[in-house]
Amino acid sequence: MVKRRTINIGFIGLGIVGQGVWKHIQRNRAELEQRLGARLVLYRAAVRDPAKKRPVRIPPSRICVDPLAVATDPKVDIVCELMGGTTLAKKATLAALKCGKIVVSANKALLCQSGEMLFRAARKGRGHFYFEASVAGGIPIIKVIREGLVANRFDLIYGILNGTCNYILTRMDQESLTFEETILEARRLGYVEADESLDLDGWDTAHKAVILGHLAHGNWIKLRHVPVEGIRRITLEDIRWARDLGYKIKLLGIVSRDSQSGKIFVRVHPTLIPKDNILAHVDDVYNGISVTGDIAGTTVHIGRGAGQDATASAVISDITDAVSALLGKPSTLPAEEEIGGEIFPAPEAELADLSEISGHYYIRLNVVDKPGVLAEVSAVMARKEVSIASVIQPKVSLGKRATLILTTHTSNEKIIQETCRNLKKLKNVLTAPFLLRIADFKD
Amino acid sequence: MVKRRTINIGFIGLGIVGQGVWKHIQRNRAELEQRLGARLVLYRAAVRDPAKKRPVRIPPSRICVDPLAVATDPKVDIVCELMGGTTLAKKATLAALKCGKIVVSANKALLCQSGEMLFRAARKGRGHFYFEASVAGGIPIIKVIREGLVANRFDLIYGILNGTCNYILTRMDQESLTFEETILEARRLGYVEADESLDLDGWDTAHKAVILGHLAHGNWIKLRHVPVEGIRRITLEDIRWARDLGYKIKLLGIVSRDSQSGKIFVRVHPTLIPKDNILAHVDDVYNGISVTGDIAGTTVHIGRGAGQDATASAVISDITDAVSALLGKPSTLPAEEEIGGEIFPAPEAELADLSEISGHYYIRLNVVDKPGVLAEVSAVMARKEVSIASVIQPKVSLGKRATLILTTHTSNEKIIQETCRNLKKLKNVLTAPFLLRIADFKD
Repeated sequence: MVKRRTINIGFIGLGIVGQGVWKHIQRNRAELEQRLGARLVLYRAAVRDPAKKRPVRIPPSRICVDPLAVATDPKVDIVCELMGGTTLAKKATLAALKCGKIVVSANKALLCQSGEMLFRAARKGRGHFYFEASVAGGIPIIKVIREGLVANRFDLIYGILNGTCNYILTRMDQESLTFEETILEARRLGYVEADESLDLDGWDTAHKAVILGHLAHGNWIKLRHVPVEGIRRITLEDIRWARDLGYKIKLLGIVSRDSQSGKIFVRVHPTLIPKDNILAHVDDVYNGISVTGDIAGTTVHIGRGAGQDATASAVISDITDAVSALLGKPSTLPAEEEIGGEIFPAPEAELADLSEISGHYYIRLNVVDKPGVLAEVSAVMARKEVSIASVIQPKVSLGKRATLILTTHTSNEKIIQETCRNLKKLKNVLTAPFLLRIADFKD
Repeated sequence: MVKRRTINIGFIGLGIVGQGVWKHIQRNRAELEQRLGARLVLYRAAVRDPAKKRPVRIPPSRICVDPLAVATDPKVDIVCELMGGTTLAKKATLAALKCGKIVVSANKALLCQSGEMLFRAARKGRGHFYFEASVAGGIPIIKVIREGLVANRFDLIYGILNGTCNYILTRMDQESLTFEETILEARRLGYVEADESLDLDGWDTAHKAVILGHLAHGNWIKLRHVPVEGIRRITLEDIRWARDLGYKIKLLGIVSRDSQSGKIFVRVHPTLIPKDNILAHVDDVYNGISVTGDIAGTTVHIGRGAGQDATASAVISDITDAVSALLGKPSTLPAEEEIGGEIFPAPEAELADLSEISGHYYIRLNVVDKPGVLAEVSAVMARKEVSIASVIQPKVSLGKRATLILTTHTSNEKIIQETCRNLKKLKNVLTAPFLLRIADFKD
């Protein structure tokens, strides 16, 4: 074994998200550590109740109740602030940054309120502040805007940034439920924050819009300059009338810049989105963000905005960048690593066989137009145990020829290709069958 | 002025993409250089015809015809290989990597064919190889998968990776044109590569799918192991029948891994996508990629896949990462920079006034159900010069009350809010008007 540098991670808050982060680091540890060339250690954690049973194993001596103790511990390299709130969390974050540490944060409220101060502290202490998890959880939108689209100026960024509101609006639309009925269900499913106003009155969306505004323009717009409207007054009838007019209602956070004057505007309000806009199809708890850059044009990014796993994915991405920064390496290393001059490539992939790729199929046949042909075709398919899901025989006169459209239940590539070869041999099948796959990807 | 390190960039190929890269670096130079803390110089370029007139200004002495001269020039820090092809481009790329340079490439064919060799050369020479522009141009999908979703394992990645094929299939669907009619138009618009087979027979998609397979699994799948089918045999009727069955036909590149066996499969074929899948709504020349990670779940990324600007955006992102790697800085710096201990924050943003935010509006009014109310309402709006686009008076009996749904032509926030206040004052308007914005974002 080659000795790798050990990176000590301190957690402030070890609740749902913190435990998710550690669980997933454990699961992918070998791959992650190989890629990073470093060992990741859960070194210390500050929690409210040290006695509480947790699935994450950490020696009792490494658990404390004082966020500042973790934030300022000289042995801690990276501090993950996952406690939330803007008082104690702010104190701890500033303390860590003053010590020159790297802070990884999911705290959008704190960032929105004190972003400027946090960044200043990071620069002064020569540390870093990462916050991918603060906006749109599983979608790496911070990285997309800041690095992937770095060449661009952004005249318009808007998005569905609050999964709870989107869930409520989607349910109202699809199930014809009232706001009151839907909110009861959302509460039951634990989708609504303890402080409901954060979600329903648009404040959570506003926090995220302010962060997007900073990414786009380098300025921290004050929350008091952001007009914010929530979704409480939207009725089922609004949703229906909007639909009749060709729209869907979504709560949007919008950061726009007037290309002439350069003036910036950040706002949050429910919006009627035309059905041909892709964001009109982003439903349920999903988030979706449209980013218009002056060079790349418009890109749209869709994914889960919250939840233990999606948020953990973002935090781990930040931790990875933090480790790269600590080691002075670019964060864009390939999956292979050079150790002591020798290169250990990824193990050879085992390729799947055609018979292991299963799915539904669409087959178009050009056949002779006479009785009994469908029976012949069906018999060929039955011999290969390919089960027919639907048959269309379009009533189009093609002289003595006809078209048959078949779709199948689940089969596999090998069998379906053999079936097509056998169909081609039939005297009444005039040209090679045309095969298309039907997507049945499970998300 | 503080002295910044100069980074010399050498271009191999200075065609459409290369000129786009340089044009956009010039335009955003101040911002980009401040963020990077470095000066970017177009130091040298290898071109086929040095005599050709180009909008990019570069001294004749710095133009040559020999790619290897640029690749091995000790003064060149970053080599941008934008010439294409797999013979000379490969020689030049390998030569640059052997010298320990950073190579930025948009060459998907070369990467697909010789990716393993290029990465090995990069590691051996202690250089780097960046290739964001090789897949899905304006969408930073390489960075998303490799960094943003670094915590994840990827059982499924699939996408619309070729804009030309998507354009053809979209036109066939929307205009009821045959493949032959559409391809003529695509050729006229310059959407089809000189070697048409790359687009139409799926090879371009296959190159990109192989690159995505490498990102997801660390393995370079050989092109000969990838079943590839193009779009030439798809008829207008197939598109119609697919629509009747609830699908759209798209050419997909698919990288799947069996979660049980771990076996990998890369394939390219036209696919029937259910209309409730977001990718069914990705039309025209747009690309769209669905990435399913075991932690983040499914994220979808949509944008322009090709063209001078989208590709330039990706190349500049790579150049930025390359500069960060050269300077040993993390690439995730905020937009502010510390120079000699002093901090220069971004200039204060000028905020737009409400009157500068214009749009269309939806207004719901609860009114007394009697003749003349609409006239009163219209009069109030007319006095503010708000032009009514549509009126709905739902035939629902609410006793003596009725609902009025109005939509407006373009107005602005200030006027519309004044209008709502005035409407509220009407005796026959029973509750505060409910105002929603209608999205009319121009993409």
